[in-house]
Formats: sequence, structure tokens, C-alpha cells
Amino acid sequence: MANITKVSPMAPDRFPNLPVIAGVTFAVAAAGVKYQGRTDVMLTELSAGTTVAGVFTRSSTRSAPVRDCQAKLGKASDERAAILVNSGNSNAFTGHYGETSVSEIVAALSGITDIPVDRIFTASTGVIGEPLPHDRIMAKMAALHADQNADAIESAARAIMTTDTFAKGACADVDIGGQTVRIAGIAKGSGMIAPDMATMLVYIFTDAAYDQGALQTLLGELTDVTFNAITVDSDTSTSDSLMLAATGAAGVDATGNEAFKAALHDVMRDLAHQVVRDGEGATKFVEIRVTGAASDADAHVHAMAIANSPLVKTAIAGEDPNWGRVVMAIGKSGAAANRDLLSIRFGDVLVAEKGWVSPTYREEDAAAHMKKQDIVISVDLGLGDGNKTVWTCDLTHGYIEINADYRS
Amino acid sequence: MANITKVSPMAPDRFPNLPVIAGVTFAVAAAGVKYQGRTDVMLTELSAGTTVAGVFTRSSTRSAPVRDCQAKLGKASDERAAILVNSGNSNAFTGHYGETSVSEIVAALSGITDIPVDRIFTASTGVIGEPLPHDRIMAKMAALHADQNADAIESAARAIMTTDTFAKGACADVDIGGQTVRIAGIAKGSGMIAPDMATMLVYIFTDAAYDQGALQTLLGELTDVTFNAITVDSDTSTSDSLMLAATGAAGVDATGNEAFKAALHDVMRDLAHQVVRDGEGATKFVEIRVTGAASDADAHVHAMAIANSPLVKTAIAGEDPNWGRVVMAIGKSGAAANRDLLSIRFGDVLVAEKGWVSPTYREEDAAAHMKKQDIVISVDLGLGDGNKTVWTCDLTHGYIEINADYRS
Repeated sequence: MANITKVSPMAPDRFPNLPVIAGVTFAVAAAGVKYQGRTDVMLTELSAGTTVAGVFTRSSTRSAPVRDCQAKLGKASDERAAILVNSGNSNAFTGHYGETSVSEIVAALSGITDIPVDRIFTASTGVIGEPLPHDRIMAKMAALHADQNADAIESAARAIMTTDTFAKGACADVDIGGQTVRIAGIAKGSGMIAPDMATMLVYIFTDAAYDQGALQTLLGELTDVTFNAITVDSDTSTSDSLMLAATGAAGVDATGNEAFKAALHDVMRDLAHQVVRDGEGATKFVEIRVTGAASDADAHVHAMAIANSPLVKTAIAGEDPNWGRVVMAIGKSGAAANRDLLSIRFGDVLVAEKGWVSPTYREEDAAAHMKKQDIVISVDLGLGDGNKTVWTCDLTHGYIEINADYRS
Repeated sequence: MANITKVSPMAPDRFPNLPVIAGVTFAVAAAGVKYQGRTDVMLTELSAGTTVAGVFTRSSTRSAPVRDCQAKLGKASDERAAILVNSGNSNAFTGHYGETSVSEIVAALSGITDIPVDRIFTASTGVIGEPLPHDRIMAKMAALHADQNADAIESAARAIMTTDTFAKGACADVDIGGQTVRIAGIAKGSGMIAPDMATMLVYIFTDAAYDQGALQTLLGELTDVTFNAITVDSDTSTSDSLMLAATGAAGVDATGNEAFKAALHDVMRDLAHQVVRDGEGATKFVEIRVTGAASDADAHVHAMAIANSPLVKTAIAGEDPNWGRVVMAIGKSGAAANRDLLSIRFGDVLVAEKGWVSPTYREEDAAAHMKKQDIVISVDLGLGDGNKTVWTCDLTHGYIEINADYRS
């Protein structure tokens, strides 16, 4: 596996200073799953009664750990819980051996921590099609349990990285009735090098209490407008996992609270944007805003058609205000559009309207916007009230280098 | 506009020696629509009673000429017919001016040739969003009509090129009851340079007679397994047009004849493959064979998910037998798949089966296949009888250079 050590030009200056979340502890270890000289396993333990929600890849070839998590979710419990994640091997497309690895890991961890097996969630990210050396992970479990520390979330963020060029974290405080509840999250993705996948793993923690069913609904709703609204190259991992754990240790029930929802939305959007900013070879962060579509679903289809178009993405890499390619992407998307009603803006510059280039358009205005690192492309369909915003990056030589020039 | 003059490494040695098709004549002109120093308009005239069928882009932002052709097709006629094509300007997203250009061109050509306006079909390919300078085309019409020549199909193929690196032609003879009927076709695509589109134009001629409705049905059926089964980068032009003209001059009715259908299929597949071999930056020709799917429709979805995956295409560029990315593409496609039933082959090499890498797999065997110019990836889903074969090319630095590095 090649090592791409260059940090994304869109990386933040530093990892944020994340708060301790009461009821959550972490530990990491270097188990040598694949990588040498770095941590590659993280264990987080969650206090008794923690509510856990999750959203996972829809891939029909999804990994054994994903299937195991999906089977366990949805039940409220007074027990403690744990999440164990390894990098270096995704335990995907490993046949029935995959399920065996998960069972052995979960059983061993349950024995060491006394947490019930149905409250232990796992994830694996890295090479696919190779058996997970679960013995190496199990050999570190006692130490991972003994080393639990409330202040180790940054170490956890680093241990789950594969080809990420920077560790990703975000946090928010929320005032609920004069009391503060905290949210902190980490993510990895979406670097990928043959034969690794663009796996996205996200773990978010809060000390608020939250109703089990409502938390799952909230997580799904906010995923639609954050992690399901980003794309690097239209490819989807067999291991994508997003989990949200509410410990309740702050003694405040946030169920249905709008400020909590807004803060959680902010944390999720921040992490999702960081994943895009770490997209392979990315040099531009692109927001695609679609309004006026016949429905929100149509807006999503148009926005993703634009965001995933290789012609649009290469034009952005070339700083070319090529609105013709945006028209093309809208036309091919399959969702409703009327040439004579749509309008297109690059930044604040009205480029096209009424089926043609705008009479006020000057290419130098749009070209100036395209030179920025953060690009906004707005499309109004003029058909209805449907809208959706998605985020992507450009398609550059760096992407080809990472995915074609290096051999596994 | 940049000129990419390098010829595709997968170009044929020379343009084929296409036969004269009785009832079909051609002429070309240098009208200076956009390009200088080359031909950019071609007119083909078709003898009285020629049956014309057509298939067009489904884009909702399709061009004015496409809409005009679609409105005119489907009626049998004893009149002569004509097809006028220009390169350099696509007359797409040109507002109501687009329809005006088409009307003026068609009216002028009808006046000169005495062919009814509803038997005159046009197409335009090139820059989008700029008014078509139809006066320049109209100034050449009298000469185009006067110069009609049965032996000028290669000139026609060259006049419609935009960023193609080679002219594309194919032909076949068919014996029907002891008489020979001929099929010859030309195509352009799919080079594209900002702000041009990957427009594909295809014109096929035969001296057989054919029933109007049956010809349209036949063309649609064969398009599904040829031109609708190729993809370079998943993007779709606003101008794609495919027309088939049967003059009947050979005095043989081929309606329903299986040998004719097979020969037409060969010509269409040959032209479609040439379009892929001229894909931007392409260095590999890739056949994706999907069998055992739950339905043919599912097989198409899986095959296109593999063919359009940037991760699969970059792996092919890197000659990397990265079957994990094929598993990923199947998983994300949305069509039915079962990890434990699918098998994957690179060439003849069985790579993966029963949810895991095959016990007989040796990476050096698959790597040897990946070094070839023509790659075959076969996937059997193990679910049913659905199958589909599609063709694509790899994704290379050349694609990025053509589409990002050059400015319009």
C-alpha cells in the first residue's frame, strides 16, 4: 500500500479541542492489523443506559461488522455499551469468515468488559477480501479496557484513519433549560487506496439523554442533509457506518429539543464537510444548491447528477465556469427540468436563465469565482418548491494518481 | 479551444473502405461555423421513399435540432429526404433562437432541394450556449446540393468530427434470397473539450427497403445493446442522435429478416466500440459482462455501475486487478446481489466466488490480463437469467488533461 503523506490543501489548521463527554471513555492500541508503527484499534466504552442509534451503508455487499451492528440496533437498554473499531482491514467480502471474526471479537470483549454482546458494536476499515487477523485485536482488548480515558477522543480519531490526510473532529454545546449538554464527534474518510474503500466512519457522542426511537429518527433525518448529501466520486463503501451515542450523564433529556437538533446538525455537517475536504486529490470544496425543483427528491437527483459529473468536476479543477456542463448534468439526471425555466449561478454571478446565457453575464465575473477554494453552484429549476444542497470536490490529477498510479 | 491532435492508441489503422449505398449521396463544405481550415457541414440526400428511423438523447435539456427531428420522425413518405449536420456549434441551450435557426436552415434547404421540410433532418455538435451562425451554413447549401456524390461518405464522417481523434465508419453486406443488400454507417464521438459535449452522432444507410414502424422498433432494440451499452464517463450529451435510412434502392425488402438484423447489429456495435476506443484519454477497452442477474434490467444496472465507477476505471488504468472495487460497484448499484452467490472473472481468471477470493486465484494471473489493451470483466450474480454486456474505457490522466487543464 502506498503512503500518501501530503495533507489536503483544504485541511483545517489543527484538530479541534473537543470536550469530554460524561459517560464516554476511549483507549487506543497498535495491534498491527496491517499498519506498523501506528495505532489501529480504538475502544470506546459507554455508561449504563446509553442510547445508541446508527445509520449504515445500503450496499448489498456490505461487511460483516455492518450487518452485525444493524441486527443489534433499535433496542433501549440499561446496560453499558461499547464500540470497537479497527483500521487496516475492513473484514468485507471475507465470506463466512467475516461473521466468525465479528463473533469472536464481540464474545472476547464481552468477557473482558462484562458488557452484553448485543451492546457491543464493531467496525472495520481498510483492505477488503483478506481475513481479519482478529487474534491481534483480541490480544489488545484487556489493555484497551484497562486504559479507558475520558480525554482520549483525538487519539481515537487518529486510530481509525486509513488514508485520511488529517484527523476529523467537531463539537457543540447546547443550552437546554439553563443546563449545558455537549456533543462531540469524530470521523474518518474518504481517502482510499487500492484495494481500500472510501469507507466513512463517524462516531458522535452526547451527554444528553434521548429516547431510543426518536434518536434513530433524528439521526436518519440529519444524515439525509449531511452525510448522504456529500459525494467524492459516486462510489460507495461496503463499510460506511455512523453511530450516535447519548449517555444521559448530563441529566437532561434532549428528546425533541430544537436547539439540540440544530447543534447536532452543525456537528454532522461539519464532519461531512471535512470528509469532502479530504477527498482524494481535492483542491476545491463545492456546494451545489438546487432550488425550485418539482420535489425535494428531484432536487436531490439533480444536485447529485451535477456533483458526480466528471465533466463538471474536471471543469471546476480547471477553474472553468463551464455552465454548459451544468446544463448537461441537469438534462441527464432524469428528474424534471425545463430548459426555458432554469437559471444557473456561479457564486453570485447569474450565468444562464431563460434557456440561454444571461444577458448580464461576463465570463470574467464567473471566472473570478472559480478561482476560489470554496465554490458555490446554484441552480433554480423554476418548477416548484423542492430544494437540496449537496457538497463535493473537484476531480484532479491527484485522484488519478492515488487510485491508478499506485498498485496495491 | 485546445486542439488535441494525438490519435487514440486504440484507433484502427485506417478508415474502412465503405461501399456506395444506392440512393444515398453526400457533400461537405467548410462553412466556418467555428473551425477554420476544415470541413464542418455535411449534407446527405436520400432517394424518394427512403424510410428514416431515429433514436435521440433523453436529456431534458436536449437541443433544438433534436426536438425538431423527434417531431418529424415516424411517418412513411414517398418523398426524398435529407440530413444536414454541422460541427463547431451544437445549437443547444440557445433559447428560442435555437428553434429559429433550425427553421431557417430547413426552409432554405427545402427551397434549394425541393425536399419537403418535414423530410429534412438536422443535427449540430460543438460549443453550446452560443447562437448558431446559420447564415454561414445557408451560404453553402446550393453548393452542397450541387456537389452530391455517392462516394463521399468518408468526407462526411470527417466533416462531423469535433474532438474525435479518428473518423469512424463500418459496413456489412447481407445476402437476402440471392441478392446483396448493403449497410454503411459513420459516427462521431466521444471526445469533448470545454465547453463541447460528448455528443455522439451516428448515421447508418442501407439500400434495403424496410417497413417504417418495424425499422424504428429494430433500431430501438439494437440501440439498447450497442449505443446504449457504452459509457465513457456517465455524462450524456444534449445532442446525441442516431439515424437509420433505408432507401430501398436494392429492390429487396429486409423487413423482419434475421440476417439483416444481425448485420445491422454488427455495424452498430462496431461503431459503438469505435466511440469507446476514442474515449478521452482512453488506453484500455473494457468489456463488462454481467450474467445471472435477477433480470436483464438488473444486469444493465450492475454493468453500468461497474463501467461508470471511477474506482474501477482508475484501477484498470493502473493495470490493477482490483476485484474489491468490482464488489463495491455491484454493492452500490441498487440492483439485487448476494455476496455469497456472485463470482468475478478478469479475462478467464476466476477471481472471487462464494463471498470471498477464489482459492485458485493467483494475482499474477489476473495482473497479466490487466496488462492487455482489451480487458474483459465478467460477473455472475448467481440469481437468475438476466444478462447484459456493456463497454467502457479506463479513466486516466489524459481525461483530466482534456477536460480540466485546457480552458475554453
